[in-house]
Amino acid sequence: MVFIGIDLGGTNIAVGVVSEAGSLLAETSAKTLAERPYKEIVKDMAACVMKAVTRAGLTEADIQSIGIGIPGVADAEQGLVLNCTNLGWINVPLREEMQKYINKPVFIDNDANVAALAESYFGVSAGYKSSVMITLGTGVGGGIVINGRTWTGAHGRGGEIGHMTLVPDGAPCTCGNNGCVERYCSATALIRLGKQECYSFPNCGIMQKAGGNINKVNARTVIDAAKEGDASALRVFNSFVKYLALTINNITSSLDPDIIVLGGGVSHAGDFLLNAVAAELPRYQMFKALPIPKLALARLGNEAGIVGAAMLGK
Amino acid sequence: MVFIGIDLGGTNIAVGVVSEAGSLLAETSAKTLAERPYKEIVKDMAACVMKAVTRAGLTEADIQSIGIGIPGVADAEQGLVLNCTNLGWINVPLREEMQKYINKPVFIDNDANVAALAESYFGVSAGYKSSVMITLGTGVGGGIVINGRTWTGAHGRGGEIGHMTLVPDGAPCTCGNNGCVERYCSATALIRLGKQECYSFPNCGIMQKAGGNINKVNARTVIDAAKEGDASALRVFNSFVKYLALTINNITSSLDPDIIVLGGGVSHAGDFLLNAVAAELPRYQMFKALPIPKLALARLGNEAGIVGAAMLGK
Repeated sequence: MVFIGIDLGGTNIAVGVVSEAGSLLAETSAKTLAERPYKEIVKDMAACVMKAVTRAGLTEADIQSIGIGIPGVADAEQGLVLNCTNLGWINVPLREEMQKYINKPVFIDNDANVAALAESYFGVSAGYKSSVMITLGTGVGGGIVINGRTWTGAHGRGGEIGHMTLVPDGAPCTCGNNGCVERYCSATALIRLGKQECYSFPNCGIMQKAGGNINKVNARTVIDAAKEGDASALRVFNSFVKYLALTINNITSSLDPDIIVLGGGVSHAGDFLLNAVAAELPRYQMFKALPIPKLALARLGNEAGIVGAAMLGK
Repeated sequence: MVFIGIDLGGTNIAVGVVSEAGSLLAETSAKTLAERPYKEIVKDMAACVMKAVTRAGLTEADIQSIGIGIPGVADAEQGLVLNCTNLGWINVPLREEMQKYINKPVFIDNDANVAALAESYFGVSAGYKSSVMITLGTGVGGGIVINGRTWTGAHGRGGEIGHMTLVPDGAPCTCGNNGCVERYCSATALIRLGKQECYSFPNCGIMQKAGGNINKVNARTVIDAAKEGDASALRVFNSFVKYLALTINNITSSLDPDIIVLGGGVSHAGDFLLNAVAAELPRYQMFKALPIPKLALARLGNEAGIVGAAMLGK
């Protein structure tokens, strides 16, 4: 038996056939064309699944389950997509619609949860009883895994670490709230603060890395300049690290997982980021003498979305 | 078979014999005399247990297990007290020491976790899959219960909601950190802010409730004055409610439990507090359209410490 994993994004649908041991046996993909009615998108998802299964030399009978990672909030029990901004979906009965084409167990979960699950099966958090993955990208996602299962919470909000409040009455967030983690710990935050530095210090290292064009400032230009010790870039980077350390303390003082995994685009800063956060953590932890979770960088790449979704059916 | 529950406090040791159904069959207590060596305290705890068992008309053979709630951080797996400020205990082998006197399974957990467990067995959160209890007292405690078990975390910090950071670089906390929840949402915070109002407005309702003596300002005088619409008291109360709503959002956006229970001394403000927090919550929740956890007041009284500790062995 094989496990189907679907990574449903705003741009692409990526489908994989995954073995019990986590090997990707075959893949297919299609454009999401998000503006279409959801029924057409699900029809294409099902077609992709069958194409991938055929490529793997298998048939529908070999499918154990279908897992779908969505960029939004799911009701895992009911198999609904409650809210998915990228796709404009509200209360979409995704499981029911998929089962019209392929009558197998269908599991739905948030994409950050799914990535955390992949790491806990085949990545850096494998073997730990509990883990939290923080995905540092355009926004900040989060995934909680306990005993090999994602913790989606009672209302599909579980692991929405990017929307924990870090600064009361702070910067407004797209979620309608203020001061959310993702205003301070995302690539978007690095870019926003990086541009501010460029306005104040037009000769700063960030501006140089961006070739003198402020519109080319991105997370990487900021981090590369920080690695070279540029004062402006370090101000931005240190602020990011401080807020990330505070966020990690808030996870430690509530869930206290065995391990916290940093993933997403910004985590490609690698040990430069990891070491900076590890050095800052003790400053923001309660009771300094107590042990704290292990901190590590995500190990899996883009395939985590497919593999993690597949593992929803395990 | 019966379950022994021990509520170990800085002042008193309270012991109860609890039936399967949660009835308190017999109780005993003794002074903790916290400055003594821990071995003497544990010896008295064991003596209290045997006295209570005898009072219930039972013998040691009837004991299923002994559960102990401690005012500190426990390593539940190893049966250690990692840190207990009130008692001055660090790395005390409480299980091992207790088993020298009574050779039964011994479970140890934080007192706030234990109170949350009691509510989830016999109180307002009974029947829910997941719950978080916030204990609003001198400090702020927290307890997470999932599927009838306390979630103590991987390093004993699970549910330490009082030490999540609410205000980066905020008011210094006894834990060595800054801006912790318990600086803003405890009886201590109500008193601190209440006294400030009394200094600024010596004729305010808080001062009147305190009989004109600022040293008599306590959580109750502030809340009673707020109930009567006093402007100073409402400023204090509204700040408390706002920070509590922010804390609840942080719990919702990470753990997202079925129900959040407010307990501890300040929760005796009752519906006045509950309704104010419920009204403020939507303002501090991400994605306003999504469902949020149910909010309720704790139902059990002082016996929760004993009964919850007993249920650790269930």
